[in-house]
Amino acid sequence: MKKYLGYFLAGTALYFGFAGIGFAETTVSAEVQYIFNTLLFLMSGFLVMWMAAGFAMLESGLVTSKSVSAICAKNIGLYSIAGVMFWLVGYNLAYGIPEGGYIGSFTPWSDASSIDTGYSDGSDWFFQMVFCATTVSIVSGTLAERIKIWPFFLFAAILTGFIYPIEMGWQWGGGWISAIGFSDFAGSTLVHAAGGAAALAGAIVLGPRAGRFGTKGEVRPLEPFAASSIPLATLGVFILWMGWFGFNGGSQLAAGTLEDVTSVATIYINTNLAAGGGVLTAAALSRLIGGKTDVVLMLNGAIAGLVAITAEPLTPSPLAAILIGAIGGAIMYFTTKLLFSFRIDDVVGAIPAHFFAGIWGTLAVPITNSDVTFGAQFTGVVAICAFVFVVSYIVWSVMKATIGIRISKEAEKSGTDRAEIGVIAYGIRD
Amino acid sequence: MKKYLGYFLAGTALYFGFAGIGFAETTVSAEVQYIFNTLLFLMSGFLVMWMAAGFAMLESGLVTSKSVSAICAKNIGLYSIAGVMFWLVGYNLAYGIPEGGYIGSFTPWSDASSIDTGYSDGSDWFFQMVFCATTVSIVSGTLAERIKIWPFFLFAAILTGFIYPIEMGWQWGGGWISAIGFSDFAGSTLVHAAGGAAALAGAIVLGPRAGRFGTKGEVRPLEPFAASSIPLATLGVFILWMGWFGFNGGSQLAAGTLEDVTSVATIYINTNLAAGGGVLTAAALSRLIGGKTDVVLMLNGAIAGLVAITAEPLTPSPLAAILIGAIGGAIMYFTTKLLFSFRIDDVVGAIPAHFFAGIWGTLAVPITNSDVTFGAQFTGVVAICAFVFVVSYIVWSVMKATIGIRISKEAEKSGTDRAEIGVIAYGIRD
Amino acid sequence: MKKYLGYFLAGTALYFGFAGIGFAETTVSAEVQYIFNTLLFLMSGFLVMWMAAGFAMLESGLVTSKSVSAICAKNIGLYSIAGVMFWLVGYNLAYGIPEGGYIGSFTPWSDASSIDTGYSDGSDWFFQMVFCATTVSIVSGTLAERIKIWPFFLFAAILTGFIYPIEMGWQWGGGWISAIGFSDFAGSTLVHAAGGAAALAGAIVLGPRAGRFGTKGEVRPLEPFAASSIPLATLGVFILWMGWFGFNGGSQLAAGTLEDVTSVATIYINTNLAAGGGVLTAAALSRLIGGKTDVVLMLNGAIAGLVAITAEPLTPSPLAAILIGAIGGAIMYFTTKLLFSFRIDDVVGAIPAHFFAGIWGTLAVPITNSDVTFGAQFTGVVAICAFVFVVSYIVWSVMKATIGIRISKEAEKSGTDRAEIGVIAYGIRD
Repeated sequence: MKKYLGYFLAGTALYFGFAGIGFAETTVSAEVQYIFNTLLFLMSGFLVMWMAAGFAMLESGLVTSKSVSAICAKNIGLYSIAGVMFWLVGYNLAYGIPEGGYIGSFTPWSDASSIDTGYSDGSDWFFQMVFCATTVSIVSGTLAERIKIWPFFLFAAILTGFIYPIEMGWQWGGGWISAIGFSDFAGSTLVHAAGGAAALAGAIVLGPRAGRFGTKGEVRPLEPFAASSIPLATLGVFILWMGWFGFNGGSQLAAGTLEDVTSVATIYINTNLAAGGGVLTAAALSRLIGGKTDVVLMLNGAIAGLVAITAEPLTPSPLAAILIGAIGGAIMYFTTKLLFSFRIDDVVGAIPAHFFAGIWGTLAVPITNSDVTFGAQFTGVVAICAFVFVVSYIVWSVMKATIGIRISKEAEKSGTDRAEIGVIAYGIRD
Repeated sequence: MKKYLGYFLAGTALYFGFAGIGFAETTVSAEVQYIFNTLLFLMSGFLVMWMAAGFAMLESGLVTSKSVSAICAKNIGLYSIAGVMFWLVGYNLAYGIPEGGYIGSFTPWSDASSIDTGYSDGSDWFFQMVFCATTVSIVSGTLAERIKIWPFFLFAAILTGFIYPIEMGWQWGGGWISAIGFSDFAGSTLVHAAGGAAALAGAIVLGPRAGRFGTKGEVRPLEPFAASSIPLATLGVFILWMGWFGFNGGSQLAAGTLEDVTSVATIYINTNLAAGGGVLTAAALSRLIGGKTDVVLMLNGAIAGLVAITAEPLTPSPLAAILIGAIGGAIMYFTTKLLFSFRIDDVVGAIPAHFFAGIWGTLAVPITNSDVTFGAQFTGVVAICAFVFVVSYIVWSVMKATIGIRISKEAEKSGTDRAEIGVIAYGIRD
Repeated sequence: MKKYLGYFLAGTALYFGFAGIGFAETTVSAEVQYIFNTLLFLMSGFLVMWMAAGFAMLESGLVTSKSVSAICAKNIGLYSIAGVMFWLVGYNLAYGIPEGGYIGSFTPWSDASSIDTGYSDGSDWFFQMVFCATTVSIVSGTLAERIKIWPFFLFAAILTGFIYPIEMGWQWGGGWISAIGFSDFAGSTLVHAAGGAAALAGAIVLGPRAGRFGTKGEVRPLEPFAASSIPLATLGVFILWMGWFGFNGGSQLAAGTLEDVTSVATIYINTNLAAGGGVLTAAALSRLIGGKTDVVLMLNGAIAGLVAITAEPLTPSPLAAILIGAIGGAIMYFTTKLLFSFRIDDVVGAIPAHFFAGIWGTLAVPITNSDVTFGAQFTGVVAICAFVFVVSYIVWSVMKATIGIRISKEAEKSGTDRAEIGVIAYGIRD
């Protein structure tokens, strides 16, 4: 009897459940959804936070051994600054924006969680903060080995507190670019091309390392510019790859329904395949054109593939994801040479992988997502890149003319580790 | 009044809830279960993906410093290849198998998620893909320092696209080994012994590094075969250990009920204790027999313990888990010497830790799980190891006879980093 | 009609749902809560487990290059020992304590999961075990380069099996310190100051490295005591920072309601901001006082900030969290010099970052949490630190007088790697 009662109840629940699906889309209660969504933000957030370590290792590995302690100090410092600035002013500058507007409010973030927001407001702040930190992480590698540490920290504070939040709010805060139909799922342009634009401005204002272009620009960092540790750079890219599951997957912003969590899974797959496409393309191009299978280009190929898929990791098929990543890898390969020909010294290759591949990925969105137009994508990319580049260029130039941004020639010769940090990076004795 | 109504409703819910438990086993709705199961796959998946970094660091640390860039390139390349191949053909070759059959279909994977599958199909693909990548990660270390990079990539494509999916489908796809009652919870044999068998075939066909066995085989890599970085190797093992919680815990395949999530916790505990048992056994044996507490053997002891518990991480008691791991560590210790006596050059000790400890773990399942017989375990181990070894041996031999698999003597002397990659691994200047 | 039925049912559910909130606080079923809580323990647990790798990298990076293999062996060994001991006796010694009592029972842990516990008992064991391991991780760095490995392992077994569980049970097991109103959310004192006290006792009994204080104590490790790898030390701190989200966030002990998961998010934010405050303070102090922006002090500043917020990561505002971390960083800075003046050789600076910053954080709890008194905090800190220091001092002294704890002068000169492990750490040839 009890058993039949159970069947009856289950049948009733199924009937009403399915009846409910017709209008309510999900059978998950609001509080359980709130918990799932918050957990997605927290889990994705610690994965993206981990990317700060990825950048630190990638950059430590690719700079010369006399500038490694400095790059470590810059990376842990910039991540600390990003947290403080994004709380103090950044979050509300982005999300306090009026609909279709240009700028939010200059107020610190405070927690506004309620059941109606659908997730913990704090978990969203945390997730958005680590994105903000990523933007400035991109800058530190490009400018390594010759920039003064405290002016770099000042720029990091300006970028994370003002420049990034303003342009990001144009889209994710519901500002004017969002209003014209621009689409950038997890930030190929908002985060990566923006970070690349700030790095490019800095590299131009700062100039190349002494002796870097004494002869015609080389394609590979060779003596005396040999990378200090390829395994650490490799570790850095694996960390970034892992963190990118949080970066893109968390940007679904919800995991409380069947549809949302299924989308997160699709995003994981496309993110992974695009990265693989970038690696294999870079490996093949470096072997076919350069003669050797260059591991540094493979590493940057992974990043380029990841950056390229970031603008739209949900709608592509697996094959499309591989191709988007592969083209990202190819763009990285050729723009690396392009920067050399312009004698722009990007120590770790961040501009090819983040700026150029990010633009590619953003412009490619309409190929797989028919709701998006090339016109809107083009407008958004130009607006954001121009804004970040110009403002960054002005900030770098003003800093150069006032407090100075470049270490002395003697300091550059002895290395930033001895000159600025006072700690050599590798005390390896046999 | 409102309060009493609440009590009444709660009481009613409890009554019907408990009534329901009698036949439905859980009170969690199908959609919430779907979300939990999918999150388990995604979370476990990024942990197992992270193991690719663990193998990269372990192998970078244990090879000599002239072959580190190459091992980094191989590891990021093989992980990229595994993703593409497992989508293109691997998944359906394994899971498209007829019940009790031998091989699935040669079709790309496509998403078949629905509420009835109980989890996102894509999250399952992702989780299974990272297992596939693990299998080939095991191979790269053994063959380091002398194999050509592109033939290795070709083998990686064959292993991840065909060899691994076929034998894995025999069990997890519901094929013939599954039908005879074989049990391998998370792949001691399907993944680890299989990867070890492929590595063993490669090591035999390829031969040892030049000068490795000029004299009687040594027990420890000594000059000129010193490991390039013990801390990186240690990091690699900690990464693998962490990732193994996903490897074994995710293999519960569900987290949407009290029973399932409780099982996942038990699996975490047993996985951790077995690893510890392997470490301590290897430490004690190396100290008692070899005189010094060899850290490399401790690291491989951890892996051996982890591999050994992987076939059955759920049924053992904590003490049994420690012992299974400890015996795994001892087997690793003695088979390391065994390989030396056969003059088989396994650069990182992958065959002792994955192949021999994997076989041990699989054969040990019936000790703690009375539903499993030694006969079925023995049959499964022999079938899978023989299949993978023979097919791999043929593939390696054909490749050797055609495109060649070994770098030149000059290249081996200068190191794979200079010869194949064109990037030295450690540009450390003082 | 179907649609209106849906609205009716939804309305009814909302009405009764809200009616229910009045007395039941949550609408999440007991089984779903159980799953969420267990997942929080497991996810937080693998993050804290990952901290074992963080300590291994931090310590590998900061010791001299002749003691790196040994520190790797110690770290993987101690983590293995912690698992075994905390199962064998530790857990029940802590949690089997009578209410308000002093010591639990000497019995192995066994799984007591049921729906009534609210989470998997095993997931709790796993989470508590990794805390136990953290305590002894703190000790290994301080005593590096001169302690014998097996006596260290013996101490690790005593600390993880007895000393830590006993004092931790006084609070988290519901013992006497808990009864007087002491508050230590995630263990600023129970874990970090306790680990620091055990390290301090060991450093005093063991004495400094040969030649470390031949002249007046230096503020920075200089030749011949240069750190072996700053990037590995930086990686270690990023790992610890990541793991700390599990350490503090998981200490909410529940994630199955809106309130709980919102609290976890707040804890993530405060943990992150406090670490940043510690980094920036240490950077500024080292630059203003020492002249250079010392990266090692920045790294220890992060740890000090994290340790300081650990006693109360929930009640502080973001600004308060930054300040608590910043003061922790300053305390670390000045107590580092203090230890030098006492000629206590703490190789990695663990005592300033864990012991002194941990005491600060615990005493600071009443500033933001009005339910806690300074008196109770002071009593708890003194009781725990005195207990751990005195017992550790006795254990170290007895071991010194019997089996010996210090390697020979010759071994210290050649390094622990050659003397005890037989494996050099960095086989880097060009």
